[in-house]
Amino acid sequence: MTHGPDSAPGDGSGGSEGAVQMAHGGGGRMMQDLIHGVIRPAFPNQQLEHNHDGAFFTPQGAELAFTSDGHVVQPLFFPGGDIGSLAINGAINDLAMCGAEPGQISVSLIIEEGFSIADLRRIAASMGSAAAAMGACIVTGDTKVVERGKGDGIFVSTSAVGPVRSASRPVPAAVRPGDSILLSGDIGRHGVAIMAARAGLTFGSPLLSDCAPLWPTVRALIERGIELHCLRDLTRGGLAAGLIEVAETVLLAVEVENAAIPVSEPVRSACELFGLDAIHVANEGRFIAFVPSDQEAEALALMRRFGDARWIGRVGEEQSGAVVLQSPYGTRRRLRLPNGEQMPRIC
Amino acid sequence: MTHGPDSAPGDGSGGSEGAVQMAHGGGGRMMQDLIHGVIRPAFPNQQLEHNHDGAFFTPQGAELAFTSDGHVVQPLFFPGGDIGSLAINGAINDLAMCGAEPGQISVSLIIEEGFSIADLRRIAASMGSAAAAMGACIVTGDTKVVERGKGDGIFVSTSAVGPVRSASRPVPAAVRPGDSILLSGDIGRHGVAIMAARAGLTFGSPLLSDCAPLWPTVRALIERGIELHCLRDLTRGGLAAGLIEVAETVLLAVEVENAAIPVSEPVRSACELFGLDAIHVANEGRFIAFVPSDQEAEALALMRRFGDARWIGRVGEEQSGAVVLQSPYGTRRRLRLPNGEQMPRIC
Repeated sequence: MTHGPDSAPGDGSGGSEGAVQMAHGGGGRMMQDLIHGVIRPAFPNQQLEHNHDGAFFTPQGAELAFTSDGHVVQPLFFPGGDIGSLAINGAINDLAMCGAEPGQISVSLIIEEGFSIADLRRIAASMGSAAAAMGACIVTGDTKVVERGKGDGIFVSTSAVGPVRSASRPVPAAVRPGDSILLSGDIGRHGVAIMAARAGLTFGSPLLSDCAPLWPTVRALIERGIELHCLRDLTRGGLAAGLIEVAETVLLAVEVENAAIPVSEPVRSACELFGLDAIHVANEGRFIAFVPSDQEAEALALMRRFGDARWIGRVGEEQSGAVVLQSPYGTRRRLRLPNGEQMPRIC
Repeated sequence: MTHGPDSAPGDGSGGSEGAVQMAHGGGGRMMQDLIHGVIRPAFPNQQLEHNHDGAFFTPQGAELAFTSDGHVVQPLFFPGGDIGSLAINGAINDLAMCGAEPGQISVSLIIEEGFSIADLRRIAASMGSAAAAMGACIVTGDTKVVERGKGDGIFVSTSAVGPVRSASRPVPAAVRPGDSILLSGDIGRHGVAIMAARAGLTFGSPLLSDCAPLWPTVRALIERGIELHCLRDLTRGGLAAGLIEVAETVLLAVEVENAAIPVSEPVRSACELFGLDAIHVANEGRFIAFVPSDQEAEALALMRRFGDARWIGRVGEEQSGAVVLQSPYGTRRRLRLPNGEQMPRIC
């Protein structure tokens, strides 16, 4: 790796390998060194050896899903993951929510001048591991460098293409009155782990992000023949946003039992401390599935192999698009999207 | 559109529609307003109406190409284009360089707090027009907002998937000794237009970026049955980087006649002024094609319908991976990648 005068080892910004410089983004020799020496070795595959503007693949299935996500999380490294695993699992999870298998992934990096090459190497390694764990392949990408103060360390945009394996498209419009709503596990871990990391807080129990790939759970449901009317991962805006976006798109009422929603004790305490409501807190490894009520028990049993899955509610007949939370005491309140946000830069 | 206290009309940052706020990125109501009110109307299509995590499509062809590019150009609006048209044409051109038709495009936006919503609307409109011009569809995307001072207006990452139409993959490894090298038009316009815009310079003749889609030219070549051994668009690093990357990948010598490379008079003058060598200057609407020499005349005639295309050189037998420039006076010099870069943030 080429070291410039402003990236000497030990200057605090670059670690022993130095720091990214503007020239690393310029299309010259240094960019080649960065790509071939630091980034690509983390996910070697035949496609990248083409040295071309894109990747080629032959679709294995009649229909494909295509997804895209930008990642701007801070801090870049957090308990339970980092921006690399987050970006790859984000792409895999968007595919999974389309009923699609992890396939080809692209990675577009926007790096701030001065970013540590050692950290870039860690992030690339994390992307490589997350992709390999799901049999996904990082087949193409791009690297840009912006001046110090015009970025924030590193931003990672991922896109993914994968073959749809579910019998039908699991989209909001396919939700039907009477559908059961299943939640794959306890909520709020990712958002609270990020907030705790930012605040420099540690809790009695370790508070790790739930950042994880959802495809194994979705695959199990598909293989068992569960009719997946709709799948939605619960990222920005949390469980609340997932429910509301689906209800508003299909224009049906959704009723959720508040007491059925699992929230771990550390997340509950942290939410109290931060003044957050866990139902609005981001997750990176949780989803809801809308399934026919006669398959509810079978689907739930399968989902429980992968986590603390629960039945949380059902879809009503009323064409309101409203999500109503029922308390154990019989009170009901309409769940609404907050106007703005609780937590910036959460993913 | 919701206006916050720090984005009042006339504050200089936001125009009459206000400015992007952190809350626009938070997964709440304001994000929905931004996406549904500002971004999506610029490229309406059925896929986006799914309101889902990804798009679905049925591949029309045995093989697909998949590409990705980040765009960080400054200024965002420049003579001959803007970051929106650049990002869409960039995606279309990467597909074209794979011999693939414009297909499905994803757009991932990273917006700096305070960015003008009027400018965002202009950029989205520009993306919509560029996609529509080529029959491409922006089918999925993502929007993130970062704090003031943690970005630079807007960054746009695009990915694209499209069916391969060329008979074989036009990649560096397919280049053969004896191949003719054809250049699609005069070089250096994009880089020089950006540099002039940054310097606030105007020239006697208007100096516009060459930002344009390359698919029409590539399609004409494919439809005529030209064997496209390799295609390469001449973005960062310019013609020099394109030639060197191909030569080094296939490990063959490449000989180029310097006098055959077209450079317009305004670009030539501007390069002198800026101390640049046009062969290293970025383009956004130029490519080189490696074709069998017996198809050279036919391919060139076709390419000349779309621009000032020229034969510029040939591939030798020698397994050197070196690119050699021949002057009209018989002198020869090896072309090398500059270590760093001439022009940051050019695309």
